[in-house]
Amino acid sequence: MKTITLLLTVILQTQGFTMSDLSEEIKQSRESTYTVNPLILSRWSPRSMSGETMTDGELLPLFEAARWAPSSYNSQPWKILYAKKGTPEWDLFYSLLVEFNQQWCKNASALVLIVSRDTFEHNNKPAPTHSYDTGAAWMALALEGNSRGYVVHGMSGFDYDRARQTLEIPDGYTIEAMAAIGKRAPKEKLPKEMQESETPSSRKPLSEIAVPGKFK
Amino acid sequence: MKTITLLLTVILQTQGFTMSDLSEEIKQSRESTYTVNPLILSRWSPRSMSGETMTDGELLPLFEAARWAPSSYNSQPWKILYAKKGTPEWDLFYSLLVEFNQQWCKNASALVLIVSRDTFEHNNKPAPTHSYDTGAAWMALALEGNSRGYVVHGMSGFDYDRARQTLEIPDGYTIEAMAAIGKRAPKEKLPKEMQESETPSSRKPLSEIAVPGKFK
Repeated sequence: MKTITLLLTVILQTQGFTMSDLSEEIKQSRESTYTVNPLILSRWSPRSMSGETMTDGELLPLFEAARWAPSSYNSQPWKILYAKKGTPEWDLFYSLLVEFNQQWCKNASALVLIVSRDTFEHNNKPAPTHSYDTGAAWMALALEGNSRGYVVHGMSGFDYDRARQTLEIPDGYTIEAMAAIGKRAPKEKLPKEMQESETPSSRKPLSEIAVPGKFK
Repeated sequence: MKTITLLLTVILQTQGFTMSDLSEEIKQSRESTYTVNPLILSRWSPRSMSGETMTDGELLPLFEAARWAPSSYNSQPWKILYAKKGTPEWDLFYSLLVEFNQQWCKNASALVLIVSRDTFEHNNKPAPTHSYDTGAAWMALALEGNSRGYVVHGMSGFDYDRARQTLEIPDGYTIEAMAAIGKRAPKEKLPKEMQESETPSSRKPLSEIAVPGKFK
């Protein structure tokens, strides 16, 4: 029986799952109307991180996941700018964040800023789904990170104008959002006022977001 | 050994995986720089569908997956309007598609149109990430469907203006995209000229979409 358990663990981990996917914190805070992939249900946005650095071998698989998202005409409008802790780029990214986010992001291992190209490369015409497609890539990144046990926390709390200047983002690209990535730590590592919200969030009822027929 | 194989199959399927996730068609057409969840690498956008109907029990779990996506302030700006084959709503949705998409979507089991609210509900201020967040929800839907063996194929080839009228989508909501969902069928079921592209697409190199530091 021990061999089988070990075998199962190895296989599930190869599939990107760990046994902790169906954790108590998820079961206690999220009620799913239908069963969905634990990879999706167990993704949430913690803030508490260890402050350790991450290697390229640990970080780049998250971007690799984003690479495989679908997009209109397979145009792949997304670009992920990133800074690892301990590199010269770190301060450029960290300085863009609002103070609240700086407080917990100081323990991140990487900060990313995701932009999207507004037009198609093949004809320079407006690409109506560039932000939507880039959100799909972002979701793949977040899921991959979460399944590997990392914190992946999206943020719009930063200075968009200063980001464009500082990171030299040209016209024709939309700044979508930032995200913090890091190794998860106990919530006690957070400032006291942030500890209470360090729990998986709930959602609107399914019937409110999925509607048969016309808008209602 | 037979028992173990059966046990593994059951467990992987419970996790949303089937043994076919690492299919030959994926291995032959996609090269991943780093290992990522097979759920993500094996998602692609086939067109060939069986024409069967889907039950709510089969369809709604895909929307359930979308429900758990992350969004700015957990605002959940997405709404999924849908029509199942054989219902009065079907024609409303089908008639919006461009002719090319109608050709293969006639065998879909469901058509969806995804919209997003442009402002936050709590203060009516513009929500800068509403399309991006909705793209994340769409990705969860697509991944859940693909892992269950369904075709989930996103589309921008439809009449956006007529969609707003026909489905009575109010101002303040952006029409993002449509998607076809159905049971997968052999590519021979498609019109001949579509059969050649019925294969998983490739991507730009990782180094082009993930850039350390400033934009380049």
